[in-house]
Amino acid sequence: MVENILEVMEQDKFAKYVGIKIIEAGDGKAKGRLQADENHLNALGIVQGGAIFSLADTTLAAASNSREGTAVAANVSISYFKAAQQGILIARAKEISLNRKLATYLVEVTDEQEDLIALFQGTVYRKE
Amino acid sequence: MVENILEVMEQDKFAKYVGIKIIEAGDGKAKGRLQADENHLNALGIVQGGAIFSLADTTLAAASNSREGTAVAANVSISYFKAAQQGILIARAKEISLNRKLATYLVEVTDEQEDLIALFQGTVYRKE
Amino acid sequence: MVENILEVMEQDKFAKYVGIKIIEAGDGKAKGRLQADENHLNALGIVQGGAIFSLADTTLAAASNSREGTAVAANVSISYFKAAQQGILIARAKEISLNRKLATYLVEVTDEQEDLIALFQGTVYRKE
Amino acid sequence: MVENILEVMEQDKFAKYVGIKIIEAGDGKAKGRLQADENHLNALGIVQGGAIFSLADTTLAAASNSREGTAVAANVSISYFKAAQQGILIARAKEISLNRKLATYLVEVTDEQEDLIALFQGTVYRKE
Repeated sequence: MVENILEVMEQDKFAKYVGIKIIEAGDGKAKGRLQADENHLNALGIVQGGAIFSLADTTLAAASNSREGTAVAANVSISYFKAAQQGILIARAKEISLNRKLATYLVEVTDEQEDLIALFQGTVYRKE
Repeated sequence: MVENILEVMEQDKFAKYVGIKIIEAGDGKAKGRLQADENHLNALGIVQGGAIFSLADTTLAAASNSREGTAVAANVSISYFKAAQQGILIARAKEISLNRKLATYLVEVTDEQEDLIALFQGTVYRKE
Repeated sequence: MVENILEVMEQDKFAKYVGIKIIEAGDGKAKGRLQADENHLNALGIVQGGAIFSLADTTLAAASNSREGTAVAANVSISYFKAAQQGILIARAKEISLNRKLATYLVEVTDEQEDLIALFQGTVYRKE
Repeated sequence: MVENILEVMEQDKFAKYVGIKIIEAGDGKAKGRLQADENHLNALGIVQGGAIFSLADTTLAAASNSREGTAVAANVSISYFKAAQQGILIARAKEISLNRKLATYLVEVTDEQEDLIALFQGTVYRKE
């Protein structure tokens, strides 16, 4: 486990620009948060898919980089279930599989009503 | 075909905030552009996966909403092939299948060297 | 809920041909079973990805068709974690989201050691 | 390139059992064929998703193992567009990206009318 994973994630400029904050990370798990406001809306007036994905993906990065070495996303799939409105979105990543070179995580994104907004499944490649 | 799809896409506040611009859209196709700068980098100093996804996803929205009705992403998968550096990224979406309620698009993201950065496959749900 | 979903699944000729048996189904959940033998191996001598997918996909069909109407798979993603050997494989499907036209299921495939072989995420389109 | 990839694929017992035949393979490309008959149908009377996936996945194996080393599927996503009837299905795999440890392929499955039945995107892990 990497001790300073929260500090490392503070270096993620895009996450900071979008307003994504990692609030917990360690042992292959992580929790991220996005306060969705007007800047995160798409042309339909709901939170843009890219903003939701970015929250999940940043949380994946925190979870996977809490392990030894450097992990980069290789493949991700995401399913969207409910249109998200402005407000706080939370992503929770858990590790499904950890192999030497590949690891897979499931990330759930929920809104303030605790409804599931999206389910994200990501496989990372682990560099030595 | 929707005549004013480029104008509609101008209403996407998150795309604008991130710096994504749709430069062509119509007949199920679209082309998007992102000038990746320091704000788009992750903790490893390469363009963040969420920024690349957002470019592809916005281009998917333009391509799929160039058809009748309103289309929202239901499922997306993305594979990343090469770390992207600062510079211009281009996404090109094409329609693979168009059914009454579902349609599927393939989006290629390339960098200034014309190298393929990511391949994105998205299925949208078409509301009447 | 469909009362006779197990009987309906008995009509799946490919599942029968491959040796897949649905042993429980109802309320958006299902459990399937495959006794993997020599016929299910690939050129490397491990259970072929198509056999594992077919087990998961048949279990998805049982889970999603335990709801009203007819459901057909629209998009699926699967990640493989461990090479499966001959023996009993079990798939367990649970419902993640149920909307009017789309529903999403997560299917875990485990081997006799209860190790996770694959994780499958499937979205179905629900016909009236 | 592996010279005898077609011979290697003949050792795939599940492919043989299902009736899948690789008819061309080399340089990261491959073509597979399935004569879908009554044994390949699901409870709705159309070709089962697992049979279509197995055809695509076997063609992926042929394409990816036409390169040096041994490749095994890590992640796959598939989208289904049209219900397939009994008859000949053809899968064509092409290489999208080839890195040292990971490679990605796109596989199109078409029916006798040359209609696109499914699009399959697979990432393999390359063992030395």
